[in-house]
Amino acid sequence: MTTSDSEKRTGIWLIGARGSVATTAIAGAAALRDRLIPPTGCVTESPELLDEGMPGFDDLVFAGHDITETPLPKRAEQLEVAGILPRGVRELVHTDLAATDQRIRRGVAPEEAGHDQLETAERLIEQLCSFRELYGLSRVVVINVAATEAHPPARSEHTGLEELEHGLRRSDPDGGTVLPPSSLYAYAALRAGCPYADFTPSTGVRLPALDELAARRGVPYAGSDGKTGETLVKSALLPMFSSRALHVHSWSGTNLLGGGDGRNLADPDNVTSKTTSKQRAVHESLGYPVDGEVHIDYVSALGEWKTAWDHISFEGFLGNRMTMQFTWQGCDSALAAPLVLDLARLLARAHERGHSGPLPQLGFFFKDPVASDEHRLVAQFETLRTFVRRLREEQ
Amino acid sequence: MTTSDSEKRTGIWLIGARGSVATTAIAGAAALRDRLIPPTGCVTESPELLDEGMPGFDDLVFAGHDITETPLPKRAEQLEVAGILPRGVRELVHTDLAATDQRIRRGVAPEEAGHDQLETAERLIEQLCSFRELYGLSRVVVINVAATEAHPPARSEHTGLEELEHGLRRSDPDGGTVLPPSSLYAYAALRAGCPYADFTPSTGVRLPALDELAARRGVPYAGSDGKTGETLVKSALLPMFSSRALHVHSWSGTNLLGGGDGRNLADPDNVTSKTTSKQRAVHESLGYPVDGEVHIDYVSALGEWKTAWDHISFEGFLGNRMTMQFTWQGCDSALAAPLVLDLARLLARAHERGHSGPLPQLGFFFKDPVASDEHRLVAQFETLRTFVRRLREEQ
Amino acid sequence: MTTSDSEKRTGIWLIGARGSVATTAIAGAAALRDRLIPPTGCVTESPELLDEGMPGFDDLVFAGHDITETPLPKRAEQLEVAGILPRGVRELVHTDLAATDQRIRRGVAPEEAGHDQLETAERLIEQLCSFRELYGLSRVVVINVAATEAHPPARSEHTGLEELEHGLRRSDPDGGTVLPPSSLYAYAALRAGCPYADFTPSTGVRLPALDELAARRGVPYAGSDGKTGETLVKSALLPMFSSRALHVHSWSGTNLLGGGDGRNLADPDNVTSKTTSKQRAVHESLGYPVDGEVHIDYVSALGEWKTAWDHISFEGFLGNRMTMQFTWQGCDSALAAPLVLDLARLLARAHERGHSGPLPQLGFFFKDPVASDEHRLVAQFETLRTFVRRLREEQ
Amino acid sequence: MTTSDSEKRTGIWLIGARGSVATTAIAGAAALRDRLIPPTGCVTESPELLDEGMPGFDDLVFAGHDITETPLPKRAEQLEVAGILPRGVRELVHTDLAATDQRIRRGVAPEEAGHDQLETAERLIEQLCSFRELYGLSRVVVINVAATEAHPPARSEHTGLEELEHGLRRSDPDGGTVLPPSSLYAYAALRAGCPYADFTPSTGVRLPALDELAARRGVPYAGSDGKTGETLVKSALLPMFSSRALHVHSWSGTNLLGGGDGRNLADPDNVTSKTTSKQRAVHESLGYPVDGEVHIDYVSALGEWKTAWDHISFEGFLGNRMTMQFTWQGCDSALAAPLVLDLARLLARAHERGHSGPLPQLGFFFKDPVASDEHRLVAQFETLRTFVRRLREEQ
Repeated sequence: MTTSDSEKRTGIWLIGARGSVATTAIAGAAALRDRLIPPTGCVTESPELLDEGMPGFDDLVFAGHDITETPLPKRAEQLEVAGILPRGVRELVHTDLAATDQRIRRGVAPEEAGHDQLETAERLIEQLCSFRELYGLSRVVVINVAATEAHPPARSEHTGLEELEHGLRRSDPDGGTVLPPSSLYAYAALRAGCPYADFTPSTGVRLPALDELAARRGVPYAGSDGKTGETLVKSALLPMFSSRALHVHSWSGTNLLGGGDGRNLADPDNVTSKTTSKQRAVHESLGYPVDGEVHIDYVSALGEWKTAWDHISFEGFLGNRMTMQFTWQGCDSALAAPLVLDLARLLARAHERGHSGPLPQLGFFFKDPVASDEHRLVAQFETLRTFVRRLREEQ
Repeated sequence: MTTSDSEKRTGIWLIGARGSVATTAIAGAAALRDRLIPPTGCVTESPELLDEGMPGFDDLVFAGHDITETPLPKRAEQLEVAGILPRGVRELVHTDLAATDQRIRRGVAPEEAGHDQLETAERLIEQLCSFRELYGLSRVVVINVAATEAHPPARSEHTGLEELEHGLRRSDPDGGTVLPPSSLYAYAALRAGCPYADFTPSTGVRLPALDELAARRGVPYAGSDGKTGETLVKSALLPMFSSRALHVHSWSGTNLLGGGDGRNLADPDNVTSKTTSKQRAVHESLGYPVDGEVHIDYVSALGEWKTAWDHISFEGFLGNRMTMQFTWQGCDSALAAPLVLDLARLLARAHERGHSGPLPQLGFFFKDPVASDEHRLVAQFETLRTFVRRLREEQ
Repeated sequence: MTTSDSEKRTGIWLIGARGSVATTAIAGAAALRDRLIPPTGCVTESPELLDEGMPGFDDLVFAGHDITETPLPKRAEQLEVAGILPRGVRELVHTDLAATDQRIRRGVAPEEAGHDQLETAERLIEQLCSFRELYGLSRVVVINVAATEAHPPARSEHTGLEELEHGLRRSDPDGGTVLPPSSLYAYAALRAGCPYADFTPSTGVRLPALDELAARRGVPYAGSDGKTGETLVKSALLPMFSSRALHVHSWSGTNLLGGGDGRNLADPDNVTSKTTSKQRAVHESLGYPVDGEVHIDYVSALGEWKTAWDHISFEGFLGNRMTMQFTWQGCDSALAAPLVLDLARLLARAHERGHSGPLPQLGFFFKDPVASDEHRLVAQFETLRTFVRRLREEQ
Repeated sequence: MTTSDSEKRTGIWLIGARGSVATTAIAGAAALRDRLIPPTGCVTESPELLDEGMPGFDDLVFAGHDITETPLPKRAEQLEVAGILPRGVRELVHTDLAATDQRIRRGVAPEEAGHDQLETAERLIEQLCSFRELYGLSRVVVINVAATEAHPPARSEHTGLEELEHGLRRSDPDGGTVLPPSSLYAYAALRAGCPYADFTPSTGVRLPALDELAARRGVPYAGSDGKTGETLVKSALLPMFSSRALHVHSWSGTNLLGGGDGRNLADPDNVTSKTTSKQRAVHESLGYPVDGEVHIDYVSALGEWKTAWDHISFEGFLGNRMTMQFTWQGCDSALAAPLVLDLARLLARAHERGHSGPLPQLGFFFKDPVASDEHRLVAQFETLRTFVRRLREEQ
């Protein structure tokens, strides 16, 4: 291996490393490396975004945290039965899955979230650093693909880094928790100098205290909530209504989800994080309030699949009322997994090039983009393209 | 009236002036002038495209050609019954409709299309010039909103202006027709120095001979086929698939149309013009062939309304097959009419600023844009915005 | 007027007499009487159910209760603007609406529901009897088309007539209410010897105490919850799945409603009555539990219209998973109004023929039929047809 | 094996024995026999239709004709890849598939259809009789599941048995064909004393001459065109509109099909058989003409799956226009295969009980039922239930 190659060896540390998205991403990366599959759905492989300077699929080493015990090869079998992972692929990447599974460490259990958060954070940091050193990685990108958490109540410790570190150090007088698990992972990642992305709507890195930490440590971060289905379509359709001066009266949506994600979102607390993030695009893109609710229902029969129905009522010339409806029948893991790979490659490259703090240029990937209120997909893609061109040119 | 005002008085000459789109546009323009309705659906009134230099709604004078005899006030009553035109509006703009109806001249009947085309053209030119002079108009914009024609066979006369004018002068040896009616109107408009737009998929101005004439006469033109429904949605969705590297396998569409447009398109010859124009965006945007047919059915029960159903089958990561479907239930006249006003204002302004020949900058409005293969709606809107800003700045 | 005619003069007393359904029914009945419209949507006018012995449209006299003050002619204008009532019809039945409005009495206000229920009941009975006598009506049918109530808690007074009348007589020790308004109306109707139907899912007549009263007074009753949209389609589709031995895994539904009905159902308490009633058909028809939620959202932009989307996931041979989806875009008032007329005619006729107690034969009309667990629409129609034939033959 | 068992051993001879439907039926019957799968989709196993006297799944012996060479085990692998046949099932029934494949004989090739039809028929008859004798079968039921043919022109030979047999005997003077292949198979089946069913819309047994033959030979027949998707839904929904006196203005349908069936139906001649059969239910059920076209498009990306979209525009009370739409996403082979088994069992049983000629009682299974104009699914199911009860009681 040449020096230049070794410089590119990049770790991808997944929070929720044994979930559907992570398993699909890990299996898919191995399949791409071995050219078993074409890079469909992987935007950093499209001619417009290709950058030789990004880590290649043979430069990636996976690891992560999880609180479940089902090993990756077993999860891959389940995904094969569900029709997500072709049998041939699964069999050929079995060794990679088994090896990666050895590198998965026990995550932050809900019951330990409440006490000793600094101690927990130190453990996480130590695990990230060991991984980086042991495999001689130039850097490790941490991406949260774990189940969606409820949004925690606001706390004074969130407002600045000093307050936060002070708060983590002492035990909470009320027995409450200073940071939700997602933010504890983000804190650890930034402290360890790892670029970080929230692929879920959980709080994660989106606290002023963590923004301050990212700036101080010189690491870039991105988020939140990967845009893989209904909201992806929204961000494609919204500019149509606004640029044509059509007035949207209502935008209603029902999402039917099977799988673990559906079951988790059946909890009303967790679903609020999600529906809030889903409606952000509508209000911000149109600039006026729009009627309509968003429902997320758990329908176990759908397995790993998701069906969304959206109903849009709008008004045209002379007050004429019209309707658009769409249904989206997709497999969330298959839509999310390649974007996780894209984000890891882009964050690694941005870190290498010296970017730090929030990366609004990656808004293309997210329902609720950090530091940006641009939701038009085409405009987000142009921004991303320009960003990648500059990363390339800076070389 | 001040001199500067008189400079802005602009004629809009509609081919098909007694059809649904024309009637809605004429009634709507009067209602906008009198502030009876908000400018919903009218893009040149949106803050991003506003240009004080464009003719205002009180600067517009309507006239046109048609081969039907039903007067505009009667057509407006029919549109009221169909639910397109609110009763209050129709009653208040009755005088405008009646006055405009007096300015409608008999169009080119199918039976006269075949012989004496030069003589017919001279008549059309004379009518356009009289209108301009009689009302002291700074210019007249001609827009074709007549029923879709079948595409004519290619002829050598179409290839250059000299060949064309030679051909029009002599009677056709085979008894055939040198120009289809839409192109004869376009020829007359350009000869009369009038900016011209094809709002239908008929041939119209899109012949090399007419392009040459437009350049020689210094008049701008635009087209073809107003993007008001299914194709509008396509142009919003296509970039989603391409920018996300999702592979579209098939894109099938069924359009159910009532009204005159539906009946006309029930003729298989005419519908071919339309379906060809509708599928152009898919192939050009994606850059690879895509399965799927487009049907246009006449369903009289739908009246002035249209329902489109599109089914898109696509592939994501690891070969996973997914589906998106949408339905669009719109009123074509209400969607098209404000765009006709927009086009007239933009072409008038572009002509004033000295633009001539094809205007790809107006691709935003069309299914089958002249001199452009950009179909992404957001990109087309950016181009239009830049164009309007330049028109404004050149002042 | 001949004796035989006078025998047929029938009163229709509507609870919620100034609502959309009532206004449409009253205007529609006048229009049918004057042959201004065909009897589309009116099943008692179809050849299979025609019975000369039923009261004709010129035999009907309308009256009712309401707690709103907007007069019927004004409500009719609102329905004209909403596109439900054609202008011509509204103008021609204006006199009928104005005359009926004079016969509408103030209903039971929510604030008076709690105290003096027997006194209130006596007032309602008196109003019904006066109406019957004043207009020389052979009978008065009472139909509840008022807004849906929340289901009240079970009480011991509901279990028998004696307990109920004892409870109504004394003031409630806990300050609670013995009967919800809908049941108070039903109690008064039965006491007055009037056939009664619940067109809403409110409790109404469905209490053992009231069933006892109906039997004692010899009056028939029917209900509950008119089947006009999504559930109508369900009752047509469910037998398809069961008779074909296809296993339904999930049946999810989202209902978007504008108008007063939508606003009322936006209250979570009221909506529970409705969603419970809507899901009854699925479980009872299939005989096994089925996943899936039903949502009812208020979307004001939809006005008097309703859109339902249902998603059904089912399994066929060899475990193959398939999907059916439907959307229903209907106008509830226009669907409900003719059924209200049908029910009134059928109940009048059944009463004349001596039927009393619950009429399961009218299950065809209801989401939640009394005394029946048959939900298959075709089977319900056969039962209704047989019932009407017998009514005819008994003559 | 006891005598009574041996009396039940029944042959199922499939025309098109190597197609998707046949392969699924043969594999499924073996899986049912070995209790590897539940009888989902198999109506003769539902409690309401169970008849101990029908042949059981361990009494069935499969054979058939085909003109393709791909052996059944290979076809089963293709169906596994397509997701129709679970891997476990396919592996466990491999032996059955291989054994059945040995019993498949070469069918009537298109090129031999034109000449020596009597000679061909004698060959087919001989094959059917050998099969019956060799396996000691009490009877053989022949079912046509081959690709849809174009409808042949009417010929005088079709009008009576004598004319037909005379015509088959001599060579055609015009070089044309007396019988299309499907009818030649039907002729052979009836001559061999085998009950026969057309599961496709091809002409098959539906000629007066063959009806005469069935009567003379005392064998029952059924058909045509298995009702497995869009038309199944139609036959469930049509009674809803008619029993509610709602006036259907238009019923439009688009069917997207992959697989061999889709490719075959892309031929305009063949598709006409199909679309005619599909629209029959609408006109006959409603009793008045209804607007709307039916499209069948071949979309290879859909594989063995089918998506239908139907749009129904209807009118309710006071002329209100409403809309229902549905989509059906099904797997035709999985829907058809269990019905093929049902038909075979029912025809065998009916034959045993002495029924002959057309069986309108089996209309439940067909788009275009013989000797019946009842299309209401629930009514058809009642008829079938009564028929099965009588078969049972006659014992």
